[in-house]
Amino acid sequence: MDAGNRIERALQAAVARSLALGCPRGLAAAMHHAVFPRGARVRPRLCVAVATACGETDYALTDAAAAAIELLHCASLVHDDLPCFDDADMRRGRSSVHRAFGEPLALLAGDALIVLAFQTLAQVACASQQFAMVLRTISGSVGVPSGIVAGQAWECESEVDLVRYHRAKTGALFAAAAVAGAAAAGADGLEWAMLGERLGEAYQVADDIRDAAAEPDEVGKPTGRDPLLGRPSAVLALGLDGAVHRLHTLVAAASEAIPPCPGGAALRSLILSEAKRLVPKRLAQSAA
Amino acid sequence: MDAGNRIERALQAAVARSLALGCPRGLAAAMHHAVFPRGARVRPRLCVAVATACGETDYALTDAAAAAIELLHCASLVHDDLPCFDDADMRRGRSSVHRAFGEPLALLAGDALIVLAFQTLAQVACASQQFAMVLRTISGSVGVPSGIVAGQAWECESEVDLVRYHRAKTGALFAAAAVAGAAAAGADGLEWAMLGERLGEAYQVADDIRDAAAEPDEVGKPTGRDPLLGRPSAVLALGLDGAVHRLHTLVAAASEAIPPCPGGAALRSLILSEAKRLVPKRLAQSAA
Repeated sequence: MDAGNRIERALQAAVARSLALGCPRGLAAAMHHAVFPRGARVRPRLCVAVATACGETDYALTDAAAAAIELLHCASLVHDDLPCFDDADMRRGRSSVHRAFGEPLALLAGDALIVLAFQTLAQVACASQQFAMVLRTISGSVGVPSGIVAGQAWECESEVDLVRYHRAKTGALFAAAAVAGAAAAGADGLEWAMLGERLGEAYQVADDIRDAAAEPDEVGKPTGRDPLLGRPSAVLALGLDGAVHRLHTLVAAASEAIPPCPGGAALRSLILSEAKRLVPKRLAQSAA
Repeated sequence: MDAGNRIERALQAAVARSLALGCPRGLAAAMHHAVFPRGARVRPRLCVAVATACGETDYALTDAAAAAIELLHCASLVHDDLPCFDDADMRRGRSSVHRAFGEPLALLAGDALIVLAFQTLAQVACASQQFAMVLRTISGSVGVPSGIVAGQAWECESEVDLVRYHRAKTGALFAAAAVAGAAAAGADGLEWAMLGERLGEAYQVADDIRDAAAEPDEVGKPTGRDPLLGRPSAVLALGLDGAVHRLHTLVAAASEAIPPCPGGAALRSLILSEAKRLVPKRLAQSAA
């Protein structure tokens, strides 16, 4: 089974199991809306790709880790879209959760998805050191002091440490995806943190480029929001060409950060081909 | 060390560790405000009491379970107090988190506390079946379909299953406290669910009684809110005397639900003495 199908199946199973019996309907619908249909699934794909490269044998643990990471990402999108933050109407080409279901259910759907991530991990909890490492990695990447919730909280501070902001808001979950994938496969997870961090930075720069240069249809959400909301952006700091150059440098650095492993060559070419998809079509065409 | 001090120390350690390095200040302050100074700590006390009764040996696991349960409870209070739900100004005798820190930080503090609960458990993750059971129990008691987030979501439905609503919103975390305490001590956790559920029901009825008959100073939050917000209440259903009678019946049922264990007698007398503290002073005096 290819990685994409594997991830969708793990997410379907996690959401279906939790919504099976006696869940309030509104909450169930809001959670489903937040997770399906698929987004790019960049983080869980990284997790599965690293586990594959490391020669995984415990597929259930990898699947749980990948699903948990995507559920936490979806939760953060639901809460970031709320009126008290981005007040976003659209996400993945359709209504944001609070526009479709109201603010109370969007708040609860985000909470429930955070918990569902850990319920999914708990399902495969077993007497193994790999599991303990996966749980530590993933929980640390969402919370404080340096996970995505802390990253979002930098937006509430008058003085922002930009490096810390990006590292926590985007880098932490990318790093966790790589480290958890390696740990699930029984490899030394910490060696893989650098790869995840570089890819997280690259993804952040690509996101800034898309905000500046892509059409809303292409990314499924409004563009041109960064200058409007006063958000830090690589395009504002480096210009569009500078940002594209920075993206290429980061992808090359990520590729070089892959530790020795059985599937290193395949992982390297996967990263390069995925990176091409991150650039808006208009720029890819004009570069060709 | 008595159970109360033990729980405070575990909570202090969990919060301090997470806030240590590089956490945005506003978020750190909001999280601290949500957890300290102490509330009644009813749920973690139940967890520790059950572990003690079962003859615990892994004290670190019990402490982590108790702290996680209280952190999840605090998170649910922060989110329930938000304007889109109860819009509460006061909690535990002072400002609610969103009144003191604003809505964005209250949203994030709740998220961060949910995650901190699992970070706290991850700290003691080890190759033991006890740990797996504790993690499954606690994660299940917060999420969907039948944990506290699902319980809160019943408030967004037009038709409410009242039994399910109370069981999920209050009972689930009480049951988890008892089951996790027993599991941490290596006992068969599921045998302890009934005790927790009965105590959860008793606590809910006591809460309804306090809302109807206590002074705001005594409970640290406004009273008389249930009829105002149209919330279901045992006092509205049974009258004040009927509700007090129901409370005594539930406490007796809880006491009888204690499975055979080394410290059963001490646990029984602890439950009866704690139950006395749940009744408002005015009613306790008039009964005396």
